[in-house]
Amino acid sequence: MAYELHYWPGIQGRGEFVRLALEAAGAPYVDVARGAVEDGRGVAALTRLLHDEAAPQPPFAPPILKDGERVVAQTAAILQYLGPTLRLVGRSEMARVWTNQIQLTIADAVDEAHDTHHPLGASLYYEDQKPEALRRARGFCSERLPRFMRWFEQILQRNPAGPRQLVGARLSYADLSLFQLVEGLGYAFPKATRRALDAAPAVVDLHARVAAQPRVAAYLASPRRIAFNEQGIFRRYPELDFD
Amino acid sequence: MAYELHYWPGIQGRGEFVRLALEAAGAPYVDVARGAVEDGRGVAALTRLLHDEAAPQPPFAPPILKDGERVVAQTAAILQYLGPTLRLVGRSEMARVWTNQIQLTIADAVDEAHDTHHPLGASLYYEDQKPEALRRARGFCSERLPRFMRWFEQILQRNPAGPRQLVGARLSYADLSLFQLVEGLGYAFPKATRRALDAAPAVVDLHARVAAQPRVAAYLASPRRIAFNEQGIFRRYPELDFD
Repeated sequence: MAYELHYWPGIQGRGEFVRLALEAAGAPYVDVARGAVEDGRGVAALTRLLHDEAAPQPPFAPPILKDGERVVAQTAAILQYLGPTLRLVGRSEMARVWTNQIQLTIADAVDEAHDTHHPLGASLYYEDQKPEALRRARGFCSERLPRFMRWFEQILQRNPAGPRQLVGARLSYADLSLFQLVEGLGYAFPKATRRALDAAPAVVDLHARVAAQPRVAAYLASPRRIAFNEQGIFRRYPELDFD
Repeated sequence: MAYELHYWPGIQGRGEFVRLALEAAGAPYVDVARGAVEDGRGVAALTRLLHDEAAPQPPFAPPILKDGERVVAQTAAILQYLGPTLRLVGRSEMARVWTNQIQLTIADAVDEAHDTHHPLGASLYYEDQKPEALRRARGFCSERLPRFMRWFEQILQRNPAGPRQLVGARLSYADLSLFQLVEGLGYAFPKATRRALDAAPAVVDLHARVAAQPRVAAYLASPRRIAFNEQGIFRRYPELDFD
């Protein structure tokens, strides 16, 4: 049975980390909220799932994965759940713990990238918090973004199986997520990202290798890949890109 | 062998979620950075661990758990790692996934509580971002805090094993973490928290039950429990507590 991915249809957002894992593994899935209402899909189906009063484990927020009767939310929890079945995580307990730890650090970076344009919270528009966004983005570009990239470079360089992937000798969901983080940062902060990546050659290589992976390349070229835009997490506001 | 917990010594912070699990389980542990330098402990030991150039899996940030040669960082990853050994998580895969999902949502609430006093980032002092903190805190108190509490109340009420714990019929690390979240919010935002808890009786009960658990009660009354203060995540700035 196909997995169901429930996520807001107009943005990549946090759903993209799950979508990339499903695509890279060639797993069958339905992108529910992007489907047609007449097929029982669309945003209405996502809303029904979110507000299902009979659900014993109601999700707090999308992305949400349905695997038959199982419902899992929270990006890192979904990836950890899918990892073994999709063969996107190592078999040993410690490989799984380390992959999860990296994923949670990627999630922290994603949160911080989001907060550059919404430092005062998601309930206000960017236009209502521009001066604050400038201050927050300056710190992100000059300190946090380079610090995250240094760490990813370091753990790639120290992988005993070599710097071609983050954990062990095979592609994991953390590699896919790091690809997406680099992709998003490169869209939102092209100058700051280029400068940080100058000091992170293994991250650059990983990003290129994931992009060239046949299933990922086919996905990225397909209409299933939503373009970056200014409603998502990674937004191109040139004034926030501090070199 | 005793676990080693590595965390900043002057605050509860994210380390407290790990400390509570270790304490509630009666597990032997050393709170390394609070120890004496002459014993090879203190902040210097934490710093050594963070900057160990030989570590194949260097942590990005504390809290960090050492279990013999194993090093695990990221609060939710540490708790998931400890859960089975400390008997603080159910045995089934789905109980573990659900417990992790709840923990990640608690972590999101913690991040948002932190950002009320640091909306422009952790590199600036609160005093340098007070007007922004007021705006961010207003939205947190009026929308986000109540929304998180409604969700916790809802999942407690829907637990098929009863509303006395979040997952199944036994105490889990997520219960301990929800206790700590309520404790912290009650310290930082007494008025807003009281109002949100008025609509969350099962959360109030859970909080009281965890506090009365003998090992937890002994811990909370001991000098091992650091008092809340204005360097931590949960800070009592009365101007940020919107009723």
